[in-house]
Amino acid sequence: MNGLLEQLRAGLPAEALTTDPDVIASYAHDMASFCDAGTPAVVVLPRTVEQVQHVMRTATALRVPVVPQGARTGLSGAANACDDCIVLSLVKMDRILEISPVDRIAVVEPGVINAVLSRAVNEHGLYYPPDPSSWEMCTIGGNIGTASGGLCCVKYGVTAEYVLGLEVVLADGRLLTTGRRTAKGVAGYDLTRLFVGSEGSLGIVVKAVLALKPRPPQQLVLAAEFPSAATACEAICRIMERGHTPSLLELMDRTTVHAVNRMANMGLPDTTEALLLAAFDTPDPSADLAAVAELCTTAGATEVVPAEDAAESEMLLQARRMSLTALETVKSATMIDDVCVPRSKLGAMLEGTVAVAEKYDLTIGVCAHAGDGNTHPVVCFDHTDADESRRARESFDEIMALGLELGGTITGEHGVGVLKKEWLARELGEVSVELHRGIKQAFDPLGLLNPGKVF
Amino acid sequence: MNGLLEQLRAGLPAEALTTDPDVIASYAHDMASFCDAGTPAVVVLPRTVEQVQHVMRTATALRVPVVPQGARTGLSGAANACDDCIVLSLVKMDRILEISPVDRIAVVEPGVINAVLSRAVNEHGLYYPPDPSSWEMCTIGGNIGTASGGLCCVKYGVTAEYVLGLEVVLADGRLLTTGRRTAKGVAGYDLTRLFVGSEGSLGIVVKAVLALKPRPPQQLVLAAEFPSAATACEAICRIMERGHTPSLLELMDRTTVHAVNRMANMGLPDTTEALLLAAFDTPDPSADLAAVAELCTTAGATEVVPAEDAAESEMLLQARRMSLTALETVKSATMIDDVCVPRSKLGAMLEGTVAVAEKYDLTIGVCAHAGDGNTHPVVCFDHTDADESRRARESFDEIMALGLELGGTITGEHGVGVLKKEWLARELGEVSVELHRGIKQAFDPLGLLNPGKVF
Ligand SMILES: Cc1cc2nc3c(=O)[nH]c(=O)nc-3n(C[C@H](O)[C@H](O)[C@H](O)COP(=O)(O)OP(=O)(O)OC[C@H]3O[C@@H](n4cnc5c(N)ncnc54)[C@H](O)[C@@H]3O)c2cc1C
Ligand SMILES: Cc1cc2nc3c(=O)[nH]c(=O)nc-3n(C[C@H](O)[C@H](O)[C@H](O)COP(=O)(O)OP(=O)(O)OC[C@H]3O[C@@H](n4cnc5c(N)ncnc54)[C@H](O)[C@@H]3O)c2cc1C
Repeated sequence: MNGLLEQLRAGLPAEALTTDPDVIASYAHDMASFCDAGTPAVVVLPRTVEQVQHVMRTATALRVPVVPQGARTGLSGAANACDDCIVLSLVKMDRILEISPVDRIAVVEPGVINAVLSRAVNEHGLYYPPDPSSWEMCTIGGNIGTASGGLCCVKYGVTAEYVLGLEVVLADGRLLTTGRRTAKGVAGYDLTRLFVGSEGSLGIVVKAVLALKPRPPQQLVLAAEFPSAATACEAICRIMERGHTPSLLELMDRTTVHAVNRMANMGLPDTTEALLLAAFDTPDPSADLAAVAELCTTAGATEVVPAEDAAESEMLLQARRMSLTALETVKSATMIDDVCVPRSKLGAMLEGTVAVAEKYDLTIGVCAHAGDGNTHPVVCFDHTDADESRRARESFDEIMALGLELGGTITGEHGVGVLKKEWLARELGEVSVELHRGIKQAFDPLGLLNPGKVF
Repeated sequence: MNGLLEQLRAGLPAEALTTDPDVIASYAHDMASFCDAGTPAVVVLPRTVEQVQHVMRTATALRVPVVPQGARTGLSGAANACDDCIVLSLVKMDRILEISPVDRIAVVEPGVINAVLSRAVNEHGLYYPPDPSSWEMCTIGGNIGTASGGLCCVKYGVTAEYVLGLEVVLADGRLLTTGRRTAKGVAGYDLTRLFVGSEGSLGIVVKAVLALKPRPPQQLVLAAEFPSAATACEAICRIMERGHTPSLLELMDRTTVHAVNRMANMGLPDTTEALLLAAFDTPDPSADLAAVAELCTTAGATEVVPAEDAAESEMLLQARRMSLTALETVKSATMIDDVCVPRSKLGAMLEGTVAVAEKYDLTIGVCAHAGDGNTHPVVCFDHTDADESRRARESFDEIMALGLELGGTITGEHGVGVLKKEWLARELGEVSVELHRGIKQAFDPLGLLNPGKVF
């Protein structure tokens, strides 16, 4: 291990490396609960591509595992350290290198915070859509690692749609360039997309060329109260079927609404069973909202309230964004599911989740990127109660099984990490897993990158 | 070879297989000029997944190469047969299996013609954007194989954005399912996107889940005449910089306009140096067109004419769509480049192409998906003239070199195939090529799928 530190120091400035046990401990895991995390040997915070290459060359020479990290806001343990690894945190590589309004691209280092980039491109009249609720904290590198989603996806798609090209340091320290700066390009296999969502298992992203959109008009939000999840889902299906393109379409169940109100006194309607938020960023959002309001009423909404103005719209988004955090305060612990089903199966998914909660006698609050069919059932439990903890894990699993049964996926946006590892093979099947291993082998033959994650 | 036919026949209906030399010859190549093509041993036209699996199992058992084909409209020789191969044509697997307006997806077999699918989803109020100019002929399988583009891409993106999931028969006959039916999903590596653009080298696509959009309003087209390519490119840059989102933004140079007029008497303005077509499919396209018209005029347009109505708009699109075909009539032969550069470099690209034409004393007509920076310089020459043919090939290559120099790619949408094989490594670099080989190895260890293409 001394050899490791010496060799790392040979190519790094002193302040880029730390072995302080307290600091190291703070880098051990991301924000997922109940995922194993080991104790790293060292935390490295490089500032240049060359420094990252030095770390990877050293790791390869000494056969030391490397765990890449962004802001560690991940919810699947994908950034958790393993014992004696190098934690390679990219947060200090945080420069925005270029913003081009004509080419509609930004070139960034991986440690740039999502919201920082969003604001910077905004000043050029541009828009970087991917907006996980953690956007004030999480990094572009982490967003790429997990193929992050957010509220915008129902209209603007996920992170994958916005990554045009990458620079990646491979396990052996070589630098790979993928993709391009152009709007289109089909030369060779799509290695860029292969890295998106690969959870740090194929290489270290050190630079990204991102596609931007023109900044849309300010969106206007509508809140609709429903007497049941079923009626809310009915409204969602009709909205999409009629060809509307909302800029967000989000659902909060009663448990979530209560938790948010308790945490931040948001004044959300406390009696609703399901609160639907819809927004449009079209030139005339009120007209679109009126059409959606009518569909909501027809589906059974008891109250439909468009936001008065931008400030009220923003307040509703804030409420939605803090849902996961608020649900975490319901009990001492939570397990957060991330099942995504075909939109037409959303009602069945939510009904099934209620049945699971009843079966296991647990509180399961649900917030959802409903327009995408992406639900976050949050299992709330007392982690000091062994039986309740067991029931929590079982219900967490049963929800994934239900998602697969309905033709969905175990993870719409949070990734597999450690948390859903055993479930991945169930979703993918044997043939796919074998090909996954073949690809991993081609990129990281020694298995040094983020071992024990994904599969 | 008798063994091959016998074993193939054991799992195929008689009419699915042909060895008639005339028929076989007609399946030897796609629409690219100057690409080697061999003589297949047999052409198989399966109708079921099981039949495709049987073909691949047989091919693996006997180590016979397999060349998958769609409609053979490809422009890079990627569908060209090699000697003694099995040509596996998917055109008879042409059923649309499902169209779901709520989930906004279509499930199709690979042989479905692009335009057939487009019309079918239209009847449900839906829209399948990818629209290569060959859309009345080419298949979804071929579109996936080449990651096809078209006129719509400047607003709606390329084929890759619309492929959610695939069923693929692997080289050894096993069936792989990738991706999903859901709007989002991040479980495992993005194998779906790996197949898109892989030119039949990784597996046989036998089913695809495609994302659909709501059908937009009818687009309205504007034609602007410019005194030079430079002024037209200036207009394009300003249109994009100002945040406009045209549904198409296309350029035809003088040679192209003349060729189209000669072929179809379209009445395009014969004196223009560069004809720009812009369209909007927004709720109020005239307002958007007016803003764009002003930018064109400021950039130096001599004439700006909005189409009177949908019929005139459609006529202008027809003219643009027939550009490649029309340019093919200028001389006895053509070589079609497909360089895509960052939009801001489009002017330099077009200027450079003129210089190449002068240097080699050749006619090079250019049409371009200009909003994407994707140019098609078409080198026109007399193939019976050996010196002119040599100059044509050299200028074809020099155009690719220029594209790379300007930060672009050798192929924006037509693919690598046989035509640009030697150029691929120049664009990708050694590290990337090595990883490509690793991936190919994982999917097709015996190298039976479309050998000699891509790399
Ligand atoms: C309150 C809250 C709300 C959230 N809401 C959402 C949401 O709406 N949508 C959503 O998708 N997620 C959400 N998340 C999850 C999380 O924020 C995202 O997964 C985010 O993308 C993680 O970014 P990060 O910088 O924290 O990455 P980390 O958690 O540090 O890492 C994530 C993964 O990426 C890898 N990685 C990081 N950087 C690199 C790099 N440079 N090169 C290679 N691999 C790298 C890591 O190894 C790991 O596998 C939320 C989390 C919280 C706490
Ligand atoms: C007049 C004209 C205009 C054109 N305009 C455009 C344009 O605007 N944009 C554009 O992008 N292209 C354009 N093209 C090129 C061509 O039409 C596209 O590349 C198209 O996608 C090819 O489809 P196809 O069915 O003809 O496939 P083919 O040419 O038969 O095959 C293309 C590739 O896909 C592979 N393939 C086919 N089917 C399968 C399958 N089921 N599984 C695995 N691999 C498969 C083949 O092996 C080959 O590598 C044009 C061509 C012509 C002739």
